[in-house]
Amino acid sequence: MILIPLQPDAATPLYEQIYQNIKKKITDGTLACNTKLPSSRTLAEQLFISRSTVNSAYEQLLSEGYIYAKEKSGYFVADISYSTTIELCSNSIEPDSLCVESPKTPYSFSPFAIDTELFPYTVWRKLMNEAVASLNAQTLSLGDPIGDFEFRTAISEYLAQSRGVRCTPDQILIGAGTDYLLMLLCGLFTAELKIAMENPTYLRAYHVFCGLGRMVNPVPVTKTGIDIKKLSASDSSIAYVTPSHQYPLGAVMPVTHRRELLDWAYSSPKRYIIEDDHDSEFRYKGLPIPSLQGMDTQGRVIYLGTFSRIIAPAIRVSYMVLPPELCRLYRQKFPHYSSTVSRVDQRILTEFIRSGYLERHLNKMRKTYHQRHDALLHALHCFGNSIDISGEYAGLHLVVSFLNYGTEENIQACASQAGMHLYSLKEHAIAPVLISAPTFLLGFAGLSEQEIKSSVAVLYKELTKEL
Amino acid sequence: MILIPLQPDAATPLYEQIYQNIKKKITDGTLACNTKLPSSRTLAEQLFISRSTVNSAYEQLLSEGYIYAKEKSGYFVADISYSTTIELCSNSIEPDSLCVESPKTPYSFSPFAIDTELFPYTVWRKLMNEAVASLNAQTLSLGDPIGDFEFRTAISEYLAQSRGVRCTPDQILIGAGTDYLLMLLCGLFTAELKIAMENPTYLRAYHVFCGLGRMVNPVPVTKTGIDIKKLSASDSSIAYVTPSHQYPLGAVMPVTHRRELLDWAYSSPKRYIIEDDHDSEFRYKGLPIPSLQGMDTQGRVIYLGTFSRIIAPAIRVSYMVLPPELCRLYRQKFPHYSSTVSRVDQRILTEFIRSGYLERHLNKMRKTYHQRHDALLHALHCFGNSIDISGEYAGLHLVVSFLNYGTEENIQACASQAGMHLYSLKEHAIAPVLISAPTFLLGFAGLSEQEIKSSVAVLYKELTKEL
Repeated sequence: MILIPLQPDAATPLYEQIYQNIKKKITDGTLACNTKLPSSRTLAEQLFISRSTVNSAYEQLLSEGYIYAKEKSGYFVADISYSTTIELCSNSIEPDSLCVESPKTPYSFSPFAIDTELFPYTVWRKLMNEAVASLNAQTLSLGDPIGDFEFRTAISEYLAQSRGVRCTPDQILIGAGTDYLLMLLCGLFTAELKIAMENPTYLRAYHVFCGLGRMVNPVPVTKTGIDIKKLSASDSSIAYVTPSHQYPLGAVMPVTHRRELLDWAYSSPKRYIIEDDHDSEFRYKGLPIPSLQGMDTQGRVIYLGTFSRIIAPAIRVSYMVLPPELCRLYRQKFPHYSSTVSRVDQRILTEFIRSGYLERHLNKMRKTYHQRHDALLHALHCFGNSIDISGEYAGLHLVVSFLNYGTEENIQACASQAGMHLYSLKEHAIAPVLISAPTFLLGFAGLSEQEIKSSVAVLYKELTKEL
Repeated sequence: MILIPLQPDAATPLYEQIYQNIKKKITDGTLACNTKLPSSRTLAEQLFISRSTVNSAYEQLLSEGYIYAKEKSGYFVADISYSTTIELCSNSIEPDSLCVESPKTPYSFSPFAIDTELFPYTVWRKLMNEAVASLNAQTLSLGDPIGDFEFRTAISEYLAQSRGVRCTPDQILIGAGTDYLLMLLCGLFTAELKIAMENPTYLRAYHVFCGLGRMVNPVPVTKTGIDIKKLSASDSSIAYVTPSHQYPLGAVMPVTHRRELLDWAYSSPKRYIIEDDHDSEFRYKGLPIPSLQGMDTQGRVIYLGTFSRIIAPAIRVSYMVLPPELCRLYRQKFPHYSSTVSRVDQRILTEFIRSGYLERHLNKMRKTYHQRHDALLHALHCFGNSIDISGEYAGLHLVVSFLNYGTEENIQACASQAGMHLYSLKEHAIAPVLISAPTFLLGFAGLSEQEIKSSVAVLYKELTKEL
């Protein structure tokens, strides 16, 4: 029996209170490794709450790796001191193209699409009008090179509350897009330091590193994220990772794995982790996965986030949280860099965050994308066991392997016949990866539920026509 | 006697027609080296125009180096096949600080100040309102990574007309500030290639290069720009120069010198020139000096310009014209970089250029800064022969050497007493430079004529108090 004092009147939902309480007991050692947790029924009865509330808490703990499930026995406390990783993919196929963008097609399953129809037009126009009215000598002057203080303060508060990122506004650096911030990062590290990247990964980051002449070590991705053994065996000093939602495979890095990753960084004075928290805002099951940065006690995690993905691609504003040591280095190396974001845009976004519009906008987007995610999952039912789906319940795409439809080229050709372009997983590989069946990323954010339904139906028809 | 057909009804002013005609005769060899030009009186009588018109044409030819003056003998055609350069400065004093920004003082003679009171508020608000109204799915999408085509077209037209830059819109790359574009350029060149920079120079560019680990070779500046002999003797592959108005000394690079510089680049397949045309819009005597890019026949000049300096520092929009070969390399190396400038800003600026607002704005600014330039020159008369002035008739600052007022520290202290900060020339040195007397950059763009007058008077009083 576990003692969990609940506060039914608190702002924090009950399931989150349970989750937080058990998580604390696991991390502080109150609940030892392999301890069996009470069944959800028992705990629900004990706490006078519904069983589904307990289940939600358990699922969150499970997805973050604090507990594990044994079939027919229930949930047990995981060994969070260390865990071994399971290898998923090794090597074989050469990526034939590194291209991410694609020809325009009627239905785009692009994993980068977002729905600009959802853009908060009314609010944005109001904020823009206010910015127009407030143009003056002060707002036209150059401003703080790392971003206006008020904007950085608003971001630090937002990150603390929504992502568990711990930082002062002075650690935040504003830039016109993630590519630009990655370029600045490259300037902070000497050219000899090698960068480990998950394979497959986010290709744009890969191109920035390579474009600036940096050596990249591709490291395989396990079911729980970057393979730590392989990372340690490589001679990398920097690890670029997507722990809250591995891009593109969708793995969530559990807490033990996160600790191993941090320990890798801590084991040498010059190692850093770049945490690209690209789409963590979109999670459709349980609580958001807290950032790796929030777990870092030695200042080795660089946190990257962007507004382009949650507001509109044309809004070129990203931010980076630097550990104190790198802040000092940045000020020393680049004291003269001017901000790349206009002060008008900074002002609009500050108001957008401060007045609660960002939170409301995110809630609306999350709800819509959740429906589209469910619509895509549902539409894919027609394929039955002939496809394998992974990476679900988060982000803006599913990873779908087609088991019975011939080669990747054949499937692409059928899709093309149906007026759509499919984005191959292979195209995200930066080194050979073993992919057992043709696998594609199906982005759902840019399509309505009806479009998802009809385009999957057409694709199914095309693919089964020849069988 | 030279035959110059004039068109009195043409849009081109008469003095410019004369200038163009003689320039053509010199470059095509019709007028041989050392040919004496008719006196301004003779030519004026021959063409039935005023003598001052001829003088204006001659001054322009003189400042661009097509002709030279011999005391009491008149003007002669320069040897534009080649010329030797005169060395101005060698080495001695270490720069004690590389800091460009300064403490806020009541009167700022900062060479970077511009007057935001002159900002075209009404027009800008109108264009912003139009942009607000036109927000839609298309304008919110990512857009062309190198900048929207319409914006690049508007810039290419503006550059062709005002700066003689020859390029297609596809050669133009838009970026959020010159620093950012220089970072991209660094990515195009392998790290081993060394960059020659004028000494003294524009420090921000220097810091970008050094920050990205590039080797910089400081090359002395002669009275006509970068020392070509020293440049050739260095092992540089890239030369970063400011030929139309050397920053900070103010030299205008004459045509012979420009040809030598181009020949330096042409003499090896991997050499490029970066032409930073930072403030060529502001010239108060004669015609604008055409760009070096316009003279380049082999695609070796990279042209850089910015709107931040002519509109407002908070407008973070610069552009770069790449030679075709580097365009191809850019597309190959960085196909995935997103634009760093918001599409709203691109749209506003496109309209600003297209509707003629930019030209009107520039005319207004040029007139105001001309008055301030003259006011500063006039105010400095009180110093008589105890100061040396150079770099006048262009840009936004004068270079003033104080001959009789003790050390630089003493002069700084007096200025500080008078509530102002003086920007030392030494601070712009990237290697030892021999400066015979304490020398400062006196920026005039941020001060009204009255402020210029009174602050120079106060400075004079402070400096002469102790004598």
